[in-house]
Amino acid sequence: MKIIKGGITAPNGFLAGFAGCGIKKSGKTDLALLFSVKPCIAAGTFTTNKVKSGSVVLSMERLKKGVSQAVVVNSGNANCCVGRKEIRDAREITALIAKRLNLKSESVLIASTGIIGRPLPVKKIKKGITGLIKNLSVSNGTNFAKAIMTTDTVHKEIAVEIAINGKAVRIAGAVKGAGMINPNMATMLAFFTTDAAMEKQALKQAFKESIYDSFNRITVDGDMSTNDSAVIFANGMAGNNIIKKGTGDYKKFLNAVKFAAKELSRKIVLDGEGATRFIEIIVKGAKTDDKAELAARQVANSSLVKTMIAGGDPNWGRIAAAVGASEAEINPWKMDIYFGDVLVMRNGTGTDASRSLLLNIFKKREIEIRIDLKSGQGSSRVWTCDLTKEYVHINAEYET
Amino acid sequence: MKIIKGGITAPNGFLAGFAGCGIKKSGKTDLALLFSVKPCIAAGTFTTNKVKSGSVVLSMERLKKGVSQAVVVNSGNANCCVGRKEIRDAREITALIAKRLNLKSESVLIASTGIIGRPLPVKKIKKGITGLIKNLSVSNGTNFAKAIMTTDTVHKEIAVEIAINGKAVRIAGAVKGAGMINPNMATMLAFFTTDAAMEKQALKQAFKESIYDSFNRITVDGDMSTNDSAVIFANGMAGNNIIKKGTGDYKKFLNAVKFAAKELSRKIVLDGEGATRFIEIIVKGAKTDDKAELAARQVANSSLVKTMIAGGDPNWGRIAAAVGASEAEINPWKMDIYFGDVLVMRNGTGTDASRSLLLNIFKKREIEIRIDLKSGQGSSRVWTCDLTKEYVHINAEYET
Repeated sequence: MKIIKGGITAPNGFLAGFAGCGIKKSGKTDLALLFSVKPCIAAGTFTTNKVKSGSVVLSMERLKKGVSQAVVVNSGNANCCVGRKEIRDAREITALIAKRLNLKSESVLIASTGIIGRPLPVKKIKKGITGLIKNLSVSNGTNFAKAIMTTDTVHKEIAVEIAINGKAVRIAGAVKGAGMINPNMATMLAFFTTDAAMEKQALKQAFKESIYDSFNRITVDGDMSTNDSAVIFANGMAGNNIIKKGTGDYKKFLNAVKFAAKELSRKIVLDGEGATRFIEIIVKGAKTDDKAELAARQVANSSLVKTMIAGGDPNWGRIAAAVGASEAEINPWKMDIYFGDVLVMRNGTGTDASRSLLLNIFKKREIEIRIDLKSGQGSSRVWTCDLTKEYVHINAEYET
Repeated sequence: MKIIKGGITAPNGFLAGFAGCGIKKSGKTDLALLFSVKPCIAAGTFTTNKVKSGSVVLSMERLKKGVSQAVVVNSGNANCCVGRKEIRDAREITALIAKRLNLKSESVLIASTGIIGRPLPVKKIKKGITGLIKNLSVSNGTNFAKAIMTTDTVHKEIAVEIAINGKAVRIAGAVKGAGMINPNMATMLAFFTTDAAMEKQALKQAFKESIYDSFNRITVDGDMSTNDSAVIFANGMAGNNIIKKGTGDYKKFLNAVKFAAKELSRKIVLDGEGATRFIEIIVKGAKTDDKAELAARQVANSSLVKTMIAGGDPNWGRIAAAVGASEAEINPWKMDIYFGDVLVMRNGTGTDASRSLLLNIFKKREIEIRIDLKSGQGSSRVWTCDLTKEYVHINAEYET
């Protein structure tokens, strides 16, 4: 596997378009379109929030049915909590895209991100669609990644290449997300493309596993969005032998998607609102993997842990307190905590780890916290970022 | 019932002492002692965190057994995560207090608050105890409330008086707490005194109900402390007829304790680290009270909701998203949301509530958010505060 240049249009047969239609007050681009010249098999996962955007509802419905060939994305407005109009608007916009691209409406998906509770400015969007279609191009992968941003400070994309029976197969992705990032699904928008030829079941399985291992392992602020959507499109244009589940080729493909998804989820955490540090929390020795995950998430979502790391202060007691507050079934007198390789708590008791050593660890941009519960074989890993004044600044002044 | 002057020493027979023994680097007072001249029946609740301070463990053990007559409190050090030494230190300190006051060790409780993972400076504390005992006095109620503070910006105390068969009965309390405040127990230190004569079961029941209705309804940052302790001492010196469960006198007493506990828990939220606003979240129409509480807590602990209120911005979609992310079993198309009396979302759909009206509501120091799920009879209420840059500042620089 090698990393290649470009983003979501790196695989054969994918084009992207972008436009600024005025949803964002800033005037930045806010419409994006991904189109495959050939019908795709597709798979996706969506928010588990009970309050769902009409865009999510429509895309979920369409993905379950047949093939997909395009997705239109708007940023700046979530198309959520505005009533039945949400679905109507989503249908109308996708219908217009379908008409212009000579597709059936059912093969066009839609995703939205931005403020909740305001009706989509459909007229503006319809006007914008003309430009969006006009500039559809292989060279617009990065512009697509930019047009889906909201509070993101950098666009996020990746492309990799593997060989399947001698044919170059490409997998690429573009994501947006910096806040409202929490477990139980991607909690962001993520679009993946591949020119691999494969069975639909193999694609679904590989995507599910990759999401579990990447976007479901990150948290920025513990808040769960109404709009999370992650979709992968496979158009088969690489001309490889069809990839089937359980084969070596499948394994190769799976690893490449996992890699791309992990890299992109990492980029989301690094771009977490106001974040200055990337934190990896590893819990092992729990009774089960699920218990380990509960402990890891409690630490990852603790405001006290996250502010401590923002302050560069190795106050590990807050980690012990967070683990103790979780549902992880622990014996406090067995718990070990490490910062990097330095053991700071052994069997529930602080060690005499050198403070200057710890302060050095806390100067780094990436910090690893390991917790060993020594009570079983369960383990988990969660990525998060620190909680800074800048996070508050961004979120206190989002709307106005 | 009337509010009277003074704090924890307002009921007859209670004395308080305070000292600065050098646990806090700032030099502020960090030792406090409460003493009843007569043995008390007592009741308490403690943190449900699996990681518990040795001070909590010892006090829980002693409360279960016989009578109590004093509690010694240190601030600046949690006496937690330092191993078996925690219990030894707690025993040693309480033994010394007992000796000086001519009590059995078992009747002295201990509470600690402050940084986790550092051994208690027992020598300093032992030296401090001399001054602590020397200045025991009825006039030191407020000094007690001050000596138990950590990141609190104001001390918090209250005293009320009721009449039971013609006798004046007093109930008073002092609390500390500003961060690490979350459900499932007080998550702070709270000490209550009363000179009421009453049955132990009646005291226990009244205290339990009062805690449930006050300290268990507040959250500042969703973090749960290792050291939460709430204790009430009753010495019977008011000379009233003994209060028994299920009587009118009991009801009167219960209401007074509830009032005092609610007032103090309100003060904790108002003094929440960095808080500028007090937020009451009321959920009704849930399937059960428990489900209502899950929804209310999810809103109360949402960083996005709390930063939105810090910013004075009526971005109610974040509330809808938080409710949807909770385990409350909702129908999003039935949910109503109010800011104060203004309906901002009806049946899952934004109303055309005037923005200027909402901005006015958000200028106030106290904000009420009401959520009606219209799916049952369950209701709940949670108090919280906003999340500001100052919270991050305080917690990023707590240790050093």
